[in-house]
Amino acid sequence: MTFQFEVLHQSTKSRARLGRITTAHGVIETPNFVAVGTHGTLKAVDNSLADDLGVQLMFCNTYHLLLQPGPDIVEQAGGLHSFIGRRGPIITDSGGFQVFSLAGGEVADELKSRRAKKGEGSVLKIDEEGVLFRSYRDGRKILLTPESSIDAQKAFGADIIVAFDELLPYQVDERALRSSLARTHRWEERSLSRHLKNPRGQALYAVLHGGVNEELRRESASFLTGLPFDGFAIGGSLGKDLSEMAGMLTQLLPQLPKEKPNHLLGIGDLPSLHRSIPLGIDTFDSSYPTRAARHGLLLTEQGPLKIDKKEHQASTIPICQECSCPTCLRFSRAYLHHLFKAKELIAYSLATLHNLYFMIAEMKRIRLAISDNRI
Amino acid sequence: MTFQFEVLHQSTKSRARLGRITTAHGVIETPNFVAVGTHGTLKAVDNSLADDLGVQLMFCNTYHLLLQPGPDIVEQAGGLHSFIGRRGPIITDSGGFQVFSLAGGEVADELKSRRAKKGEGSVLKIDEEGVLFRSYRDGRKILLTPESSIDAQKAFGADIIVAFDELLPYQVDERALRSSLARTHRWEERSLSRHLKNPRGQALYAVLHGGVNEELRRESASFLTGLPFDGFAIGGSLGKDLSEMAGMLTQLLPQLPKEKPNHLLGIGDLPSLHRSIPLGIDTFDSSYPTRAARHGLLLTEQGPLKIDKKEHQASTIPICQECSCPTCLRFSRAYLHHLFKAKELIAYSLATLHNLYFMIAEMKRIRLAISDNRI
Repeated sequence: MTFQFEVLHQSTKSRARLGRITTAHGVIETPNFVAVGTHGTLKAVDNSLADDLGVQLMFCNTYHLLLQPGPDIVEQAGGLHSFIGRRGPIITDSGGFQVFSLAGGEVADELKSRRAKKGEGSVLKIDEEGVLFRSYRDGRKILLTPESSIDAQKAFGADIIVAFDELLPYQVDERALRSSLARTHRWEERSLSRHLKNPRGQALYAVLHGGVNEELRRESASFLTGLPFDGFAIGGSLGKDLSEMAGMLTQLLPQLPKEKPNHLLGIGDLPSLHRSIPLGIDTFDSSYPTRAARHGLLLTEQGPLKIDKKEHQASTIPICQECSCPTCLRFSRAYLHHLFKAKELIAYSLATLHNLYFMIAEMKRIRLAISDNRI
Repeated sequence: MTFQFEVLHQSTKSRARLGRITTAHGVIETPNFVAVGTHGTLKAVDNSLADDLGVQLMFCNTYHLLLQPGPDIVEQAGGLHSFIGRRGPIITDSGGFQVFSLAGGEVADELKSRRAKKGEGSVLKIDEEGVLFRSYRDGRKILLTPESSIDAQKAFGADIIVAFDELLPYQVDERALRSSLARTHRWEERSLSRHLKNPRGQALYAVLHGGVNEELRRESASFLTGLPFDGFAIGGSLGKDLSEMAGMLTQLLPQLPKEKPNHLLGIGDLPSLHRSIPLGIDTFDSSYPTRAARHGLLLTEQGPLKIDKKEHQASTIPICQECSCPTCLRFSRAYLHHLFKAKELIAYSLATLHNLYFMIAEMKRIRLAISDNRI
């Protein structure tokens, strides 16, 4: 089965739409949340359990997998699905975001208010060919180019792969943005060309850039939608807040071909989902639900619940009374509170299971609302 | 169903025996390994998965559960089984070992070559009544006595509970040992008396002391087996090495009543099991298999395998080819190696599942060998 996308229903109330992506490893109903498993795991939940839970698409990071275990080992194991024991669809990114943010530092600092962790590597050279950086694992130099990124993603064998792009800080002048955009387009064209030599049934998504500059976003959409990509991811700077992002998406989404899926990169908090879906977004990825879980922040329809608060210490009810996740069906808030207090590892697994299940259920509710034209 | 023990077969080759302990929460086939879940969890594996895997008896520590979440919360949740979501049998200890070792420090230093972790509390007073210590969690003073230990264990509601005892360092003179033994016997008698006022279907095990002094061990066995305990745990100093322990067990075990189960406290490494079972030991507890797992030490019939070694990085075979554990059925050594390298939490769960399963399978092999009179 090759990659296929169908729009099943267009809401009469907004640009929100129901769709279905079909891949060799199964179906992704859209709109949908994509769980992030950077190193080929959702950290505290094993991959076959995530499959059983209903995680329809898992996001793995090429940058991390390139450094460890490396494409050769994954390919030798029969590809990422076989290596990590996942039955369902996988998407990998190009490594571009991480090499510029983790290895570079300043972009991530600005975009995500975080600092590159000490020793996460360093960018040695950026030129037309690609990016030369030093591995934080073993100090070896690695040249990441559109071609080497696609080759790595071929070795991994994800169902959806992503073109290689350049990432700029939020605060740059228009000239720098324009020049970077032109390079990103050339890199994405090279990615496409490399991919088309050996498609292997994988779908290749372009990454739309242009920051919050309406004209540049339009140029990026115009250029990239003219090429035979299978889908369109929205990357680069998404604005300084939700409102700026919504403004950008409102302009940008109507410029994308309706018959192809789109993906919003690195966004997965509930307010952003609820704002972006009516604008026509199909998929999103974010490590928020799994990371929040490990900090004891449990998602509920009444907002996140901090399980280590004293008010939960004797509570015999589950996180959510109406939830059917493996955690809520078996364990009380009091036990989870106790496990978090005692810093027991299973706490992180049980919390992650709940948050993943919550996101899956939330996306079902959203899809139902779209089919009823309530969104 | 009240507590019951049957000897099913006595080996013709040694004192090794096959038995069956029946409790309200299920059956424990002996000899068997008892997994340690100090805070009410096997740390990286959830309790219903441990049930499914075949962990027939789980050991929880009264000292830790007393401090957090406390007996009231556990009792209010319907007891430990309900609180932690375990279907199978549970044993709790008296808190004696931990209060003297963790809070006291020097005993554990000597017995287990470890130091009390900083801030794990301190013993304020030991007298005939019991032990007064300060909680490392909130600084409050707690008096642990035979009566309060039994009361806590009643609140927890484990299937098997243990009498309160005093623990001395290995290096003490005979006078100190003799005086401590007398107090331990008085404390155990008080424990029994408290228990018998409200048995609640729980079984109470005595703890035999006397260190490696043959005469004192004999005295301890003689005194305690004269009282209506349901089983006999072997505690206190077990000697400086395996050979000293084996010598002590060889003397001691024939002095115990054949119709009651015995338990070797805090021992669970394979060489000790293989040495003690032919001497007639029924159950053992140790955190070794689960702790080793978290350090990437995976048990195999060819000895432990260190999964983070480079030789496993491209190995597509499971930990053990012949193993049917949930880890070996799904994941390769290369993936586990990668997860340990990346310090992913799921690594600890998958490794623990394997080691638990290995112990369960090993105990089955041992029981089969006993039934064939090969041990």
